[in-house]
Formats: sequence, C-alpha cells, structure tokens
Amino acid sequence: MVARLTESPVYAHLWSTPELDRLLGERARWQAWLDVLVVLARVQARAGIVPVRSAEVIAERARVELLDWDLITEQTRRTSHSTLGLIRGLRAVLPPEAREDVYVGATVQDLTDTWFGLLMRDVGDLAVRDVTAVRDTTLRLAHEYRNTPMAGRTHAQPGAPITFGLKAASWADELGRHLDRLREGRDRWAVGQLAGAVGALAFHDVAGGDPLALRAAFCAELGLGDPGISWLTSRDRVAEFGWVLAAVCATTARIGGEVVALQRPEIGELAEPTRPEAVGSITMPHKRNPELGEHLDTLARLARAASGVLLEGTVALHERDGRGWKAEWAALPEVCLLTGTALGLARELVDGLEVYPEAMRDNLARHGDRLASERILGMLSLRLGKHAAQELLHEVLAPTTPGEEAAVDLATAVAARGVATAEEVREWSARPATRAATAMVDIVLQRAGWES
Amino acid sequence: MVARLTESPVYAHLWSTPELDRLLGERARWQAWLDVLVVLARVQARAGIVPVRSAEVIAERARVELLDWDLITEQTRRTSHSTLGLIRGLRAVLPPEAREDVYVGATVQDLTDTWFGLLMRDVGDLAVRDVTAVRDTTLRLAHEYRNTPMAGRTHAQPGAPITFGLKAASWADELGRHLDRLREGRDRWAVGQLAGAVGALAFHDVAGGDPLALRAAFCAELGLGDPGISWLTSRDRVAEFGWVLAAVCATTARIGGEVVALQRPEIGELAEPTRPEAVGSITMPHKRNPELGEHLDTLARLARAASGVLLEGTVALHERDGRGWKAEWAALPEVCLLTGTALGLARELVDGLEVYPEAMRDNLARHGDRLASERILGMLSLRLGKHAAQELLHEVLAPTTPGEEAAVDLATAVAARGVATAEEVREWSARPATRAATAMVDIVLQRAGWES
Amino acid sequence: MVARLTESPVYAHLWSTPELDRLLGERARWQAWLDVLVVLARVQARAGIVPVRSAEVIAERARVELLDWDLITEQTRRTSHSTLGLIRGLRAVLPPEAREDVYVGATVQDLTDTWFGLLMRDVGDLAVRDVTAVRDTTLRLAHEYRNTPMAGRTHAQPGAPITFGLKAASWADELGRHLDRLREGRDRWAVGQLAGAVGALAFHDVAGGDPLALRAAFCAELGLGDPGISWLTSRDRVAEFGWVLAAVCATTARIGGEVVALQRPEIGELAEPTRPEAVGSITMPHKRNPELGEHLDTLARLARAASGVLLEGTVALHERDGRGWKAEWAALPEVCLLTGTALGLARELVDGLEVYPEAMRDNLARHGDRLASERILGMLSLRLGKHAAQELLHEVLAPTTPGEEAAVDLATAVAARGVATAEEVREWSARPATRAATAMVDIVLQRAGWES
Amino acid sequence: MVARLTESPVYAHLWSTPELDRLLGERARWQAWLDVLVVLARVQARAGIVPVRSAEVIAERARVELLDWDLITEQTRRTSHSTLGLIRGLRAVLPPEAREDVYVGATVQDLTDTWFGLLMRDVGDLAVRDVTAVRDTTLRLAHEYRNTPMAGRTHAQPGAPITFGLKAASWADELGRHLDRLREGRDRWAVGQLAGAVGALAFHDVAGGDPLALRAAFCAELGLGDPGISWLTSRDRVAEFGWVLAAVCATTARIGGEVVALQRPEIGELAEPTRPEAVGSITMPHKRNPELGEHLDTLARLARAASGVLLEGTVALHERDGRGWKAEWAALPEVCLLTGTALGLARELVDGLEVYPEAMRDNLARHGDRLASERILGMLSLRLGKHAAQELLHEVLAPTTPGEEAAVDLATAVAARGVATAEEVREWSARPATRAATAMVDIVLQRAGWES
Repeated sequence: MVARLTESPVYAHLWSTPELDRLLGERARWQAWLDVLVVLARVQARAGIVPVRSAEVIAERARVELLDWDLITEQTRRTSHSTLGLIRGLRAVLPPEAREDVYVGATVQDLTDTWFGLLMRDVGDLAVRDVTAVRDTTLRLAHEYRNTPMAGRTHAQPGAPITFGLKAASWADELGRHLDRLREGRDRWAVGQLAGAVGALAFHDVAGGDPLALRAAFCAELGLGDPGISWLTSRDRVAEFGWVLAAVCATTARIGGEVVALQRPEIGELAEPTRPEAVGSITMPHKRNPELGEHLDTLARLARAASGVLLEGTVALHERDGRGWKAEWAALPEVCLLTGTALGLARELVDGLEVYPEAMRDNLARHGDRLASERILGMLSLRLGKHAAQELLHEVLAPTTPGEEAAVDLATAVAARGVATAEEVREWSARPATRAATAMVDIVLQRAGWES
Repeated sequence: MVARLTESPVYAHLWSTPELDRLLGERARWQAWLDVLVVLARVQARAGIVPVRSAEVIAERARVELLDWDLITEQTRRTSHSTLGLIRGLRAVLPPEAREDVYVGATVQDLTDTWFGLLMRDVGDLAVRDVTAVRDTTLRLAHEYRNTPMAGRTHAQPGAPITFGLKAASWADELGRHLDRLREGRDRWAVGQLAGAVGALAFHDVAGGDPLALRAAFCAELGLGDPGISWLTSRDRVAEFGWVLAAVCATTARIGGEVVALQRPEIGELAEPTRPEAVGSITMPHKRNPELGEHLDTLARLARAASGVLLEGTVALHERDGRGWKAEWAALPEVCLLTGTALGLARELVDGLEVYPEAMRDNLARHGDRLASERILGMLSLRLGKHAAQELLHEVLAPTTPGEEAAVDLATAVAARGVATAEEVREWSARPATRAATAMVDIVLQRAGWES
Repeated sequence: MVARLTESPVYAHLWSTPELDRLLGERARWQAWLDVLVVLARVQARAGIVPVRSAEVIAERARVELLDWDLITEQTRRTSHSTLGLIRGLRAVLPPEAREDVYVGATVQDLTDTWFGLLMRDVGDLAVRDVTAVRDTTLRLAHEYRNTPMAGRTHAQPGAPITFGLKAASWADELGRHLDRLREGRDRWAVGQLAGAVGALAFHDVAGGDPLALRAAFCAELGLGDPGISWLTSRDRVAEFGWVLAAVCATTARIGGEVVALQRPEIGELAEPTRPEAVGSITMPHKRNPELGEHLDTLARLARAASGVLLEGTVALHERDGRGWKAEWAALPEVCLLTGTALGLARELVDGLEVYPEAMRDNLARHGDRLASERILGMLSLRLGKHAAQELLHEVLAPTTPGEEAAVDLATAVAARGVATAEEVREWSARPATRAATAMVDIVLQRAGWES
Repeated sequence: MVARLTESPVYAHLWSTPELDRLLGERARWQAWLDVLVVLARVQARAGIVPVRSAEVIAERARVELLDWDLITEQTRRTSHSTLGLIRGLRAVLPPEAREDVYVGATVQDLTDTWFGLLMRDVGDLAVRDVTAVRDTTLRLAHEYRNTPMAGRTHAQPGAPITFGLKAASWADELGRHLDRLREGRDRWAVGQLAGAVGALAFHDVAGGDPLALRAAFCAELGLGDPGISWLTSRDRVAEFGWVLAAVCATTARIGGEVVALQRPEIGELAEPTRPEAVGSITMPHKRNPELGEHLDTLARLARAASGVLLEGTVALHERDGRGWKAEWAALPEVCLLTGTALGLARELVDGLEVYPEAMRDNLARHGDRLASERILGMLSLRLGKHAAQELLHEVLAPTTPGEEAAVDLATAVAARGVATAEEVREWSARPATRAATAMVDIVLQRAGWES
C-alpha cells in the first residue's frame, strides 16, 4: 500500500508516466541495481577476481522475478543496512558455488550512484527528446503566427502590440537553451561509481589487481563515463542535473501560465486543448478549466523544492555523508518524475493549443490606439524629442479608472495639441508596429535550424 | 557605499521604511547593542560585579555619536572578532577607571541575540499594528460590499457568483489568524540571552555570584522575558518569528495578486490607488501598472527565502554554531525589512483600493446564466437528482471555444429538455445566489468584533 | 508498481510508519474521503436534502473494498476530473434509488480539504504524543546528567564545561515550545471545508436550505471545527501546520546531529543505540554508523522543502487556485510522513541513547585547564579587570597549532605574570564551573512540570 | 544609513569585497547604467536617431558625480517609476539641445537587464579567476599529499585509509566542473537587452529604422552578445548564473566544512590559517575557531536561498512581470556578493591551509588494524569468498561501545579462526591500501593539465 497521494494508482498519471515508471519504478530500480551487479561480476570475472561461471550464473539469476522480496524486506530491516537484504536475497537464488561472487568489493553507494548515472543519462535523454518536441512545436507556432498581432502585456496590463509568433519564439528560444544545457551536462552526469568503502577502492587493491582498470571496464560496459575519481561526496553532478530539470519544468510552467491567463474568457486569445469527455467542474457544468497549465505550475513548484534539496546536498562531509545522500534518494527520482510528467503534459498542451487570432485582434482594437502608444511616441519623438513627446502623451492619456480609459480619442487629442494631424495619428496606429517582432521570430527560427 | 541595490538611497522606499530604519538601521543597531551593554553594566553594578559609577559612566558614554567608527572597523578586521572592535572603541571613550567594567562576561551572541529579542518584540508589535490596520480595512470592505455580487473565479475562470465582501472577508479572516500567531508567539521570542561562553554562564559563577538572578534582572530591565535556559543553538524562536512574518507577507501578496488580476482592463473590477504624478510606463504613456500588488509579491518571495534560511538554521550543532547563526544576521533583519515594507504597502493598497461594482455586475452579466449554473444545478437537482441534473447541464453547456460560449441560451436549452420552463431557469439565474456568502461575511465580522 | 524509492516496500520503514500508513495510505485516504461523503449525506438527510434511507445505504456501501478501482481509475483519466471517477465508482455500488444522493453539492476541494483538516488534527495529535515522549526522555536525561560535566563546544571546538544535562535540557525546552505550537494551532487547522463551487455554497442556497447550518453540522459530525468562512484559497492553516512539523523535524535533526558528532570515536561521549544484528558497513566490518542521526537530518531537509512548498501556496489566486492546491496534495502528506517517521526514530534514538560520562570527563581533562578559561577569566577579572585579564590570558594561551596547545602549563604561566599563584589557578580549574548549568536544568524541569 | 547588517561598514568584509563593490556598489551601479545610456545614445547617433553632438555631450555629462542625487531620489518617489528620477536628473545636467536625446526608446528593464548581462559577464569572469585559483591550490595540495595517508571517514566515523591528496583532488575535480559550467554558460548570460515596451522594439520601428541592427550595435559596443530575441520574461539566463554561483559557493562550503571538522582538536588533521592578531573568543581565550570554514557555510546557505528566488522567477508572465523581475534586483546582486566573498575567503583558506600528516598518521594508528578492514576483507575474500570473509570479520569486530573497540586484537582474532596467520593480517594492515587513491590523484592532476 502506497503512502503518498502522488503514488495513488488513480492519480499516477498526474505524477509520472508509464515510460518513467519503466525507468524508475520499484521493479525497474531493483532490476537496474541487479544489472549493475551483473556487470560488476562480469568485469570482475574478466579481471580474474571471480570465476567466469559465477558471472554467467549471476547474469542468469539476478532477476527481480526470481527473488524473494519478503525475505529481502525482512533482512533489510533486521540488518538496518540498505542492501544486505538484497545481497542475501540474491545469494539465496544462486547456486552455492557462485554465492561468494556477487556484490564483491562494492558498497551501497556504488550501486545507487551508478544507477543515478544511468538515470541521469536516460532521463536526460528523454528530456532532450521531449524538450525538442515542445521546442519544435513552439517553433511551428512561431512561424505560423509570426505576423499575427496581439497585445503585448506588461504587469498584466495590455500594452504595445507584439505578434503571437514572438511569444512562441520566446518559448522556443528558452527551450533551445535548455537543450544546450542538457547536452553540455550529459558527460558530467552520465558516469558510474566504483569507489568502495571510502573512495579509495582498497578492496580491489589486492593481489596485483588494478582497481582503476576495473572501474573503467565497469563504466564502459554500462555505457557510462569513467568519473576519474570517486564522487561519493562530490555531488554537484546530481545537483546540476536536478537544477536543469527543474528549470525545464519552470519553462513548461511559464508556457502553461501564459495559456491559463490568456484563456480567461475575458481575454480568450488562447485555450488548452480539450477532450470531449473532460469535465471541468461538477458543480459548475459550464466551466472549462485550464488544467494542464495549472498542473505544470504545480509540478514546477515541487521540482524547484526537490532541486533545492539536491543543491543543499552538495555541502557534504568527509568520504560519505548519509544526510544529503539519502535525501537524494527521495529528491532525484522526484525531480525526474515531476519533470518527465511535465514534459508530457507540455507536449499535449502545445500540440493542441488553440489560438484565436480574431480575439487577439479584437482585444487590440478594444484598447484602440492606446496600444499603439509606443509607436506614436516614436513618431512624435521625431518631431518633439522623446521626453517632450512622452510628457504630451502622458498628459493626454493619464489613466483614470480602468473602465473610463476609452473616453478620450487619442488622435483628436494629439491633434488638439498641434503636433500632428488626427489623420497622421490614426495612420500610425492603424497598423501594429510588429516589424521587429517578426524579424526576431525569424532569427529564432534560423538559429534553431528550423525548416517549415 | 552600499553594495546591495536594496540599500540604494534612491530605492530604499521599496525595501524598507523610515520606521524600520529606526529599529534596524546601522546607527540604530549599534545604539541598541550599546544600550544592551549599558543595561548589563547596570545590573552588574547592582550585583556588585562592577562599580556603580562605572555603570553610570558607561550609560553616559555608550553613544553611537561618541565612538570612533573608523577605529572600530579597523579593529574588527584586525582581530577577526565580531565585537572586539566595538569593545575597543567603547573603552576608548570611557575614563580609565571604567574601562574594565564594560562588556563583562558577555559574548557576541549575548549581545546580538538579546538584540534579536528586542527586534522580534518591536517588529512583531509593529506587525500587529499594521496587520490590524490592514485587517480592519478589509473588514470595512467586507461590510461595505457584503452584498455586492461579482463572479467567483476558479482556475482563473469565472464561475458562480460571490460577493466582493466575501473576498475581502477571506483576507480579513486570514489576517486575523496572523494576529493570533503574532500574539501567541510573542512571549516565546521576546526573550533576552545571557549565556556566556557555552551557555553555562561560568564567567559569572564566581565569588558567590548568582548568574541566573543576574540574567533575570538583565532581561527584565530590557523589557524582555527570561529564557530560563540559554538558547545559543536552540533557534526555533527566530525561525518561528521569521515564518510568521513571511506568512504575513504572503497574505499581503495574495491580496496584491488579486488586485493585479482584477485590475486587468479586460476585467476592471478592482484597481490600485493611483497618485496623479505616478508614471506607469515611459514608453507606453497610457499604462497604469499595478505596482503595489506586484511588489508585494516580490517582497513575499524574498521573505520566503529568508524564512527558509532561518528554519535551516535550527539544525545547529553543539553550544554555538556560526553557520546558521551568522546566516540569521542576514536573514532575520531581511525578513523584518521585507515584511514591514510589505505591510506599509498593503495598508496603502487596501486603504485606497478602488472597487467597481458596475464592472463586477457587467462581468457577471456578460457570462449570463452560465455563472448561475451552480444554483440552477441545485434547483434541477431537487427535481432530477444531483447527478442527472449535472449531466444534463454538462451536455447543454459543454464548453467549446472561449469565444463561442454565448451561442446557447441556457434557459431555452434546459426548457427543451422538458425539466423546467425557460421562465423558471431565468428566475433562478436572475438573482445571484449569494445569501450564504453574505452570511459568512457576517460571521467574520462578528468573530473579529467589528463594529461599523 | 510504485514510482518513488521512498515508497519501496523494502525501504518504507525509513519514510513512513505503519501508523501513518493507516492514516495516509492509499486505502486509508480513499476510505477517509468516503467517510466524509457518508457524513455529508447524513447531515443532508437531516436537513431534508436527501432521503434518510439514501444516507443509510451510502454509509453501508461507501467502503473501499466494495468499489471497482479499475473503473475509478479509468473514469478519472477519461474525465480529467479528480473525483468524478470516484463518484461513478461509488454510484455503481449504490442501489438506483440512492445514486442521486451521494456527493451532492460538494466539490473535490470540499472533500480533500476536509480530509486535510482530519489529517492535520490526527497527525498533529500523533506529533503531540511523540514530541511529548521525546521531550520526557530528554527531561529524564537532563535530570540524570544534570551534574555530569562535559566540554561545551562552540564552532566545533571544545570550550568551557557544561553538563550533559544542560544539553539535554536545551532539547527538552525546544520540544516544549513545539508542544505549545502544536496545541495553539490545533483549532486553526482542525477545521472542515464545505464551500461548493466558489466558496459561496450556492448549491445549498435553494428551497429554504441553510447552507451554513449544514456546514456546521458537517464539521461537528466529523469532529472538526467550523471554519466560519470558506478557506479555498486561504491556505495559511496548511502552511502553518507544515512549518510546525518541519520545525519539529529540525529539532530531531539537531538532536541527531549532536549524537553523530559526539559519537565520533575521537570523541566518544554519546552513541546511538545499536541492535546486535545491525550491519554498519559491508566493506568495513568494524564500522558502527550513526544511522538514526543522519537519517533524521535527511528527513528534516525534505520536510523543510515540503514546508516551503506549502508556504508558497498561500499566495493563491481568486476562489480556487489549482497551482498551489495540487502542490499541497504532494507536500502536506509528505511533511506528515517525514515528520512522523522522524519522531519515531527520535524516540528510538533518545530512548536508547548511550551516554559515556567517563569519556566526557576524559575529554575535559585532555584539554586541561584551557577549558576552564572562562572561569579563570572570571576570577582574574575580579583582580585585574575583565579586559586586562582577557588580554593576559590571550597572550598566554595564544593558539598555535591544534597539536601543540598542550605545550604550556596555564597555572605556571599565569603565576609567572604575578597575578595569581599556580595553586589558585589550579583550584579554579579543578572543578568545572557548572553551577549555573545545573540550575538551568532545574528551571527547565520545573517549567515542564517534570517529576522524577 | 544602511538598513541591513550585511551592509554595515564594520562588517562589510564578511559580505562583500572591494572588488565587488567596484562592480556592484551604489556608485558603480549608477555609473554602469549611465554608461549603458551613453552607448545607447552613441549607437542611436550612428543610426541617425539622435544628433552625434548629443551623444557626445551625454558621454561627457553622464557621470555619477555630476548628478543631483537628492533630486533623483525625490523624483523617483514622486513618480513611482524606477528610472524617471534618473532621467530627470540626467536631463538636468545636459544642455537643453541634448535633453531630448537621452534614454530614447529604452525602458527600465533594457537598462537593468543590460547591466545584468554586464554583471554576469564580469562577476562570472572573476569567479573563473578565483575558482581557478582555489582549484590550482587544491591541485597543488593533491600533488603534495598524494601519498599522505589518513583515515577516510564515512558517516563521521573513521574507516579505511585514503590519502589527503585524494580529498584535495576531489575538491579540485569538482571545482574543475564549475569552471566548465562557468565557461559554457558565459555566452548564454553575457547578452544585452534592448526590447522596448513589450519586447517588440516598436519605438525604433519608425521612419525606416532598423531596430535589430541598432540592438546588435548596442550589444557589440558593450562587449555583450546579441540575444536574438527579447528576453524580458525569459529569465533562465539569470537563474542559471545564480545557480552556478550558488553551486560554487556550496563547494567552498564543502571544503570549509571539512576543515572545520578536521580542525577539531580531538582530530587535529587540518587547520585554517591563523593571523597573530585574531581573537577567537573573548570569553575563552584559548579558543581557535574555524571562522573561515563556518562563514563559507553561512554564505552558501544564503546563496542557495537567493538562487532559489531566481529559479522561481523564471515562471514569468506575459511580456514583463514585475514580481520575479524585482526579486532579481535583490537576489542577483546578493548571490554575486555572497559567492564573490566566499571565493576570496576560500582562497585564503586553501592558500594557508595547515596540514598535519603526523596527526593523520597517528589517528590511523589509533584505530589500528580496524581501518584496514576493507583491505583485510579483500585479502580474506580471496580465500573464503567475499561474504564469508565479511561475516567472519563482522563477528570478530562487532562494534560494542565507542570506547571499547580497542579491546580485540584483530590479527590474533582472525588467526584464531584459522583462516590466516596473525603475521599475514598484520602485514596486510601494515601499509595503508592507498595505491588506487594515489592513482586517482594523478588522473585528476592530468585531466586538469597540472604541472608541478
């Protein structure tokens, strides 16, 4: 029975994905640990440390489905040791002649850190795939709507026009930087750990063995990099990975939050995809809730918290420090699950994003020439100087109440000051000044190598 | 020259108040520390530890304006000791016969923790005053608008009606709980510290002295509680105080965020107070930005971060732990300044809050009978059962696109199903169902002892 | 299959307890939600909203073991609604005549917030029980070792003597403040929620019903307080509860960290309880690791992070805000599980704590008269003045290297300055100056009403 | 008068450096902003937007020392606008014919974000310099002590031997990764901002101007990269920079914490550099406190908190979001100051680090052959198999109490089991098994390109 609501089978789709379960789930984790032990035995067999036949039989028998998990659980609690239960369970399914040859010279952290290396590699690769997918869709949106004007909004107030393409391009550009981070960090975090008791690998320093060659083979066989030096208390890799994921998660929350705001029916410029069977509210049947966008924010909050735990863990002591290390056991999988889930939802969100150019145009029009004030300011500045123009416009447009702003006809009011004709002002504000916005979209598309 | 932008004289009004400067500022802090030393000497004189005349002269001379601050700064750096510079500076302004009698038997932390006690007491009292003021204004708003209908909004979507009074009452109720917390915690955190080297007060354990009586007198003279036991590494007081302030700050941010959202011109139901000379934007002269609301959120973010540092500091080691303690030197004043500033801004915000009942009514009307769907559901449930009624309404109202929702006339559509006449539906939705909302406002007013 | 390592059956004992599972676990949570629905139907029956027979049959059938969880899971995903799956599953086990009468007029948040209220009440009561138990044991330790001298340590360096009783009393005193917080907060957070769609209870505002009387009955029947006003986005209760638990967790981590440090064999003054079958290290068979102490720190880190998420959630928007609310779904149970687990471990730690007074005495002696320097300073101050005495001692004792500090005989060196005889200095340092320490222990014992 | 203790002139050396003050301090910041305006005018002059002569006179007059800061402060408060006071102050010192030509078309955020770009570039470069310096010293330590055995410690308990070189190499390796991060990120964060009102640069979109060419020239002239697209609410750059700095800070705290622990006189293996005039404690004259190490931890805590604020700020809304942006005003300078200070202290710490090989050797010897248990296990495993050997050693060495562990002679006890002679066991434990440790040091030195 699970204790955490996030693990409820009923709600698991909000806190994980089947794909992540196959990487991180109970069964997957144990099998991954067993696979690490199989590889350890294999490279030890090659080095003459254990018999080749033992390594073979370990590879055959180290299967989650063969082990007695009640025994393992019971022995784990009895010994207060994280993997002695596993060792005893594993030895129990091995023939007597191979029982001494499993889990030789390794420690708990060798096992779990190597799994962390695998996890960071594989979850990182999934993140690259999904960030790329979201990025590509936002590039497509940027291209499609590169000339679609809408109100830019600052401090939650409509301002000068942008295009929806510019907004989408900003998302794509940010996601592109995350791709760079994920790629740059991969070699740092996709490494194995074979450190022994205190990082000095003394166990293997016997009878002419070469502990570092063994470690190199161990990592290579697992498809991981060789760390060069034990990293038992050098946890920046884990913290960096966690931060990059939390930052990715935050970007999906930024996209989601934008949709939540622009889906307000008072604005109505964007909307999340809907499914016919979805029910927004059981008490208000008319409601259409932006659930994806909100949930992306939820996931990002929790990912930030987990990421903070990982950074705190880098201030570790001596050669092993259970305080931060065991916190990683909770926080690293957590940030993987949260971000992986967020990316899946973000794909769903951007793939089915509903865009309403008419509403964008209507909202621009609703606020009339006010939203052209930046451009009108630019034009008047050519005549009056920038600050004189600004002061003139500020006097004319001095905001009163939200509802009353339409009371002044800007063109007439400016004309009354004798600095431009009403026709000129109307012409300046007739066409949204979005030339630079469109050009920026093109830069982002080009930098991303996008082809329509 | 200050290093932090938050300390810039130009922007200081955003990050502190004159009142807080008088409690926390450079000069105030030093004088407060000196005052603690004056009290220490006074109670030591009464106990026969230092001459009475020394205590008197210390009280006369321990003035910020008499000290040589260049000397103190230089000596602080030379000795790498937090208060030895101060001691030397202070001794330099004392007559020779009193120089041995200042700062006797106390440590840095006795001085700074006692100052913390004073600070928590005084900033806490200011917080009580300001939270009360904001609460009282929100109670007034709750009373004034107890029957003023507006759309309730969930997931940023308009839903069933509430009254604006209910919203304001929710703020007042939350602020009332903060007042309880501030009052309940006061005796915990308004205590002094006289612990000596390791908390055992061994310095004073000489020649028949009574260290605990001395401490009791020291605390009483300062208007602080006696802690009973040294709290050098028992930092829950400081962390609790920091959390309560950060939570207060968060409530002001909640109020501010509500105004930011409802001040959107597309909604226009609330607006921050404006001053004629305020300039929202220098590039968009028409803009009226909700600066107070946004800044309250800014302050709350930083207060949360500082509060987290204080909680982390409670995991302290042995009898003194510089790691968390010195972090408190930064984080406790920070959370005081942020929250005190926030409360001042929050008072300004609620005192001048502009409320637009017509816009509230118009927005309710704009979404028509949809926003009455909870009540219609309630009425239909009496006939059909709750779930049958809900399914019927869900079919009728199934959301399509944000722009299209007005396409269906609910009364007609329901009538077409034969479960009610169109007249009935129109009657149910004609009057917002806000009776319970108003009753809840009254409960909050009554619990708060409010009288109009 | 669980996704989180913290949920692994093998390691569940490190991240939960059977008792917490019975409150928070999958089955318990669903049954608690069902029980809330049962109570809702019952009070609605009394109010004439649903038939009495329906309420009875709902009470009979709303059992976790009767429901089809595959159906519920499938319907939850299909509808994207948090409880519509549950509703359909529940209706499916009801006779047709009662199917309309379940979950009437309530929303998801009514259900989950009311569960939060129950959880905060019950987990809070468990915390009171366990904090009391740990506190009582630390009081016992404080009493038993009130006169047992040991080195006080500041900045991780041995300093003047304290008694172990003083250290234990500091723990007890801090835990006592947590008990106050838990008791003061109980009425704030142990409340129910019946708010309807937007907090205005419009559903029940039909046909002469009294929504607030219904809510009062609903809360009373559940043993919860009536909140007075809907608290859908007023989340300070949840945040406060989370903070208090995280602070409790931090105190257990402070105790644990002290034991970890003093269990270093180079110090050897305290040790965690051991069990014969525990295995500290599989590569270093001699190791005895302070696992409890480290794990308490791990749990406290994660609890702080979860607590931070809850505080962030108080800045909520409008009448329902999925962003912070759903983050509570993860963070509130998390902080309950972490703290509940920590308290169990802390009980085990203090109950079996091994105290080595001889090692304490030997360590005091090892550093010789240096550790009496505060008292010697006190005595010399009577003759020379405080600062003259301090400078004399500083010159005599100026630290050189850690290994060399024993090179000077303090008594001889002081005598050589002609300010005291060597005999006097030896007498001052012969007896640890712990009189005030013992007196503070007695104060704490007395304040706590302790009787041996 | 400053409000924050961290800004006290007396303590400023603990929270900033003179070098950082020259980059971030009040005067420096204003001059940097003015310099940005000078460059803006210059590139606008080239583009024909303002007269060349105006740009020249702006360059001459935009000097901090010429401006009336009382006026600027007063106007800032009056207008509630972040830079309108500055604009008015600046215009006041310009000749009338140039007054219209300053700050043309730019917004507050253009100014402050461009300053952020400069800051991230310059503070990042300082960090590269200082991280390199600390790294090089730790490499030197790693080389010098590559063969110096000491006890490895796990869970704060001495275990198998390492060399001090291995510990130092672990620091160097981690710092090397930080250098990679600082270099990889530089092009991402060292960019300018010229976005105008909403990111679309509409102001400059007049009369045939080319806004993007103007921006490119603006950035190039400042030595910054061209961002391609406005990044007003795309704040991952700032958050990434803050995280990298906080992670650097954490590594210095890890080094510092190690020294604090190993400087305990009970261990005495390392010590911070001391200065003759430093005073550890005024009540305990014998004390030598590890102040650097503790303060590095203090700084790292605060840096983590500031870094968290920056990550939270990435979830920004629309085209400008004051909530997170203004929080960056506090948090970005803060993390720069904290980390820059930490790096200076870390240089001081490692440059003067005192290493006591004899104490390391003595401590190894004190725990005798126990600390060779990993190697003995390795040797016995060759004969008995790994798990049989481990169980045998576990039985022999089963820990009892901290003080009693010396009671068993391991060689004799193992010999009594008939699996090895006592001579063999003594031989295995005579020489610390640190061959692999030394080889890992060499790998780190080689990867870092270190030459002695």
